[in-house]
Amino acid sequence: MEDIKHKILVLSGKGGVGKSCIAANLAVWLSMQGKNVGLLDIDIHGPSIPKLLNLEDRKVQAEGDKIKPVLYNHTLKVISIGFLIHDENAALIWRGPMKHNVIKQFVTDVSWGNLDYLIVDCPPGTGDEPLSIVQLLGNADGAVIVTTPQQLSVIDVKKCITFCRQLNLPVLGVIENMSGFVCPHCNHRTDIFTGDGGKQMAKDFDVPFLGSIPIDPEVVSACDSGKPFINFNSQSTTAQALNYAFESLLKPDIKTKLIRRLRVK
Amino acid sequence: MEDIKHKILVLSGKGGVGKSCIAANLAVWLSMQGKNVGLLDIDIHGPSIPKLLNLEDRKVQAEGDKIKPVLYNHTLKVISIGFLIHDENAALIWRGPMKHNVIKQFVTDVSWGNLDYLIVDCPPGTGDEPLSIVQLLGNADGAVIVTTPQQLSVIDVKKCITFCRQLNLPVLGVIENMSGFVCPHCNHRTDIFTGDGGKQMAKDFDVPFLGSIPIDPEVVSACDSGKPFINFNSQSTTAQALNYAFESLLKPDIKTKLIRRLRVK
Repeated sequence: MEDIKHKILVLSGKGGVGKSCIAANLAVWLSMQGKNVGLLDIDIHGPSIPKLLNLEDRKVQAEGDKIKPVLYNHTLKVISIGFLIHDENAALIWRGPMKHNVIKQFVTDVSWGNLDYLIVDCPPGTGDEPLSIVQLLGNADGAVIVTTPQQLSVIDVKKCITFCRQLNLPVLGVIENMSGFVCPHCNHRTDIFTGDGGKQMAKDFDVPFLGSIPIDPEVVSACDSGKPFINFNSQSTTAQALNYAFESLLKPDIKTKLIRRLRVK
Repeated sequence: MEDIKHKILVLSGKGGVGKSCIAANLAVWLSMQGKNVGLLDIDIHGPSIPKLLNLEDRKVQAEGDKIKPVLYNHTLKVISIGFLIHDENAALIWRGPMKHNVIKQFVTDVSWGNLDYLIVDCPPGTGDEPLSIVQLLGNADGAVIVTTPQQLSVIDVKKCITFCRQLNLPVLGVIENMSGFVCPHCNHRTDIFTGDGGKQMAKDFDVPFLGSIPIDPEVVSACDSGKPFINFNSQSTTAQALNYAFESLLKPDIKTKLIRRLRVK
């Protein structure tokens, strides 16, 4: 783990807000910038990363006493419980301690090598998995929090920010996903999940707002076909929004401000 | 618990598919039919039921050595961890055993009284919470499984069906939520989460398909304002789809078929 420069968690209080999609696109985007990247999927009950990156048939290999991650390309290494389960319909009916053990193995027994960034995709909530990974990583840079604009999601995401603060994990920023739907037929925009919740919440909690990503059927279709959107549709408005969010996330001034803010507390 | 005639779990492999919304609407719908209903929210990290039923400011009361549930109306009793937490931003950073204990209390120490139906809203996945509730209830009628049509959700929901089969919990049916968006401006329908995944999956796994519910900004707004959609918008197409799904769920012939199928296995 000491060979990894930056460790970033992707969190959300609520499921189904597109967290895994954001995590996968962030990892691919970093790798497109020439960075050495690891993507660790710690969603044990519903691992989405293998599907999102079209790695569903891949399995991990042993390398001495280490586990060798699956390569998406020569600069992106991936680990997910999905690579260890042969039947995609199998349910892992596991209680917390089992999950903690497997996450510990993913952190300590995988040959990650030298990485610029390790991106961790966490399941929703503030239970065993995010708690274990924060404790196991020890010195993560911080968390990106994903929400949809609707109130119901924002409520859970506030709990997520409280979680970060209680564990001294800096909040690097909030991404508002599924933010407005533009009808492909008439171009009329409908705010399906109503408006502005993520932005307002970021303001209320004094954390950086990294931008809004539109709800886009092309993203859903990219997810389902395992083609990371940012790679295969880089010219679209949605890809530009993702690009802006990721650039804002890594801007040194945001990080400096955050570290300062954290020290003040 | 022996005073409760029917116990139905609402499950999904994936978060954000509208499971709590379906659970709340099912409970309100049953109560509108004159049934005595309990609604038990076992999502410990992100309880949505208080918000969905506009009960956010309510607290549980003691009644001798029992916990008195919160009343939505005179035929619908509700319990959620949300009623025990005073700060809505507080995060319950709890590992599995803690969650098991509180769910056990919700089952054994709440004065549910005589109920026709107990509806249980579970968090996503196949971990501690759904495992605990299935074990604690012992003889539930079965589970309603909620999915969106997209592949990524369907994969997780298949795991959920495997979970039910391994625990001998009958699958009462699958509801496909967020199934197609009709532009309010031009009436053009877009399948945002692509098509038919829930229906196809129900067929593949030989479980009843209870219908598709459209993605409808009015439902989101009803959720955010705590007005159960089926009660306040009963004439809309979406409410009719919900109505059809709930009627199908409770049709005796489906249940008889299921019990037969379960016995054959």
